[in-house]
Amino acid sequence: MAEYKMILDLDTGIDDALAIAYALATPESDLIGIVGSYGNILVEQGVQNSLDLLEMLIHTEVPVYQGLSHSSTTDHFDVMPISAQIHGKNGIGEVEIPTAKRKAETMSGPDFFIEAAHKYGKKLLIVPTGPLTNLAAAIKKDPEIVNLVGRVTLMGGALTVPGNVNPVTEANINQDPEAADFVFRSGIPLTMVGLDVTTRTLLTTKETQKWRDLGTFAGQKYADIVDYYIDAYKVTSPHLGGCALHDPLAVGVAVESSLVTTLALDMKVDTEGPYAGRTIGDETKVNNPNPISKAAIGVNKDKFLDEFMEKLTKLFAEAN
Amino acid sequence: MAEYKMILDLDTGIDDALAIAYALATPESDLIGIVGSYGNILVEQGVQNSLDLLEMLIHTEVPVYQGLSHSSTTDHFDVMPISAQIHGKNGIGEVEIPTAKRKAETMSGPDFFIEAAHKYGKKLLIVPTGPLTNLAAAIKKDPEIVNLVGRVTLMGGALTVPGNVNPVTEANINQDPEAADFVFRSGIPLTMVGLDVTTRTLLTTKETQKWRDLGTFAGQKYADIVDYYIDAYKVTSPHLGGCALHDPLAVGVAVESSLVTTLALDMKVDTEGPYAGRTIGDETKVNNPNPISKAAIGVNKDKFLDEFMEKLTKLFAEAN
Repeated sequence: MAEYKMILDLDTGIDDALAIAYALATPESDLIGIVGSYGNILVEQGVQNSLDLLEMLIHTEVPVYQGLSHSSTTDHFDVMPISAQIHGKNGIGEVEIPTAKRKAETMSGPDFFIEAAHKYGKKLLIVPTGPLTNLAAAIKKDPEIVNLVGRVTLMGGALTVPGNVNPVTEANINQDPEAADFVFRSGIPLTMVGLDVTTRTLLTTKETQKWRDLGTFAGQKYADIVDYYIDAYKVTSPHLGGCALHDPLAVGVAVESSLVTTLALDMKVDTEGPYAGRTIGDETKVNNPNPISKAAIGVNKDKFLDEFMEKLTKLFAEAN
Repeated sequence: MAEYKMILDLDTGIDDALAIAYALATPESDLIGIVGSYGNILVEQGVQNSLDLLEMLIHTEVPVYQGLSHSSTTDHFDVMPISAQIHGKNGIGEVEIPTAKRKAETMSGPDFFIEAAHKYGKKLLIVPTGPLTNLAAAIKKDPEIVNLVGRVTLMGGALTVPGNVNPVTEANINQDPEAADFVFRSGIPLTMVGLDVTTRTLLTTKETQKWRDLGTFAGQKYADIVDYYIDAYKVTSPHLGGCALHDPLAVGVAVESSLVTTLALDMKVDTEGPYAGRTIGDETKVNNPNPISKAAIGVNKDKFLDEFMEKLTKLFAEAN
């Protein structure tokens, strides 16, 4: 039996699709559910993408829960043009995959977080790779869960490098800075896997060709999906030389913390003016000897990429 | 004979006054000169303060060179009200000390950097604790020096915590972001000792009382000067619980790098808009395996404070 139980909170998206595959291929944790969020896509599209990908990967035992459709400070959400450019309008690179036969669960995403926190306690790993809206809502509804869960390992933010929305803001945090600030300050054990490290774990068409060469439906489709993402990166981030494995790295770090080096630091998120969405140390806690959160500032990129390719290639080979 | 030769580039200032004392009390390096800068004070006042302090400490063998009077992008400099509030209008906490008998050298600060770089090479440690205007001017005049000198260990910037001028900008870098960006990207080996660590090395009146109790003129005057600074911190940064030893920490790190933990990171300085003056990783070099610069992100505060107090107390006891 796996040591951990994992919940992904995804705005499924291409690197989210890779995070699903990585979580399914990680024996140290059972993927007990996916919470759907907005961001790269509208929440309904993200939920559908998660259902479809799970069915393609023959893992229909994983339930999907719909989360909130917009940030805690707005009443509406529209996908940003840059998101559609990077992930495609359908979120998975304009690639078509079969529509899942099943539907999302009736329980809400935040309620699922609360139920799982009480049921699994320290065994529960929460991995949000989109806005922190759902997790903030869960904590607001049941503040006790911050003391129950094992750890939140989130993809988002940027501490030692610029943001990707503007010079100070990363895209996931930018969707809902207030929710992110609330989660960061809530006291929940938290590891931030931000652009500091995810822009160092890069995939190229050399790797996706290996999936294509498997000859399986899942391998072919994942290669097509990720090639769209690699092409987008050539336009948006030509200096990187590949596409960043943002979301899968967070999954990897959740079960194997030694993949990154971290800085223990109590953090906050700026919520106003030109600095809104910036993740930064909380200057009022700089002399706290036991910070509750950590920021990943270095990554063993070769180890991660080796494990990533080994796990996903095996999963895609076995999927059909 | 000391292993290193050190040049301080100071806008003398109270913590700059402590940096002078710390450098004089550091046997691993000879203090071969002080370059005067603007910032906490006008350049002329800073030069005079350095001359006066050196004479009070009976170290008139150390020459003082006047540097530039304003930033590379302005034609004038006025002291900010907050600087006068923290350091006093005279830069040394409104404390009066005897005026030095000697004057500054005729050679300019930037020319002294160039001369010393060629003379001492890798033995030369440059410790700027004000704007980087003088060092940028020296590198522009003689670019070769970036390959000659041992290391620049600067007090300035903020990587993992907010600034102290605004949420993104630290005061020294804020004086001349263009010069700072030029130095950061010049290829000179550089360690940034910023607010990340200096706000963790705090002095209180408990320590200054020890200097006062020495009964020496220098001990008494330094205690009076630093008490002004401690009082100012109670108003400007009440959350810290003491005054930050910004500039002396840079001196300490220059000769004893193990005082801090560092992140190897190629950095840049934003120069425009609301982010001007922010020190941050250069996203275009994030996959460079051998970054030229380092940022201090952790500090052995007990070790530093013990060494700081031991060295300065001995110096003030022996000064007269």
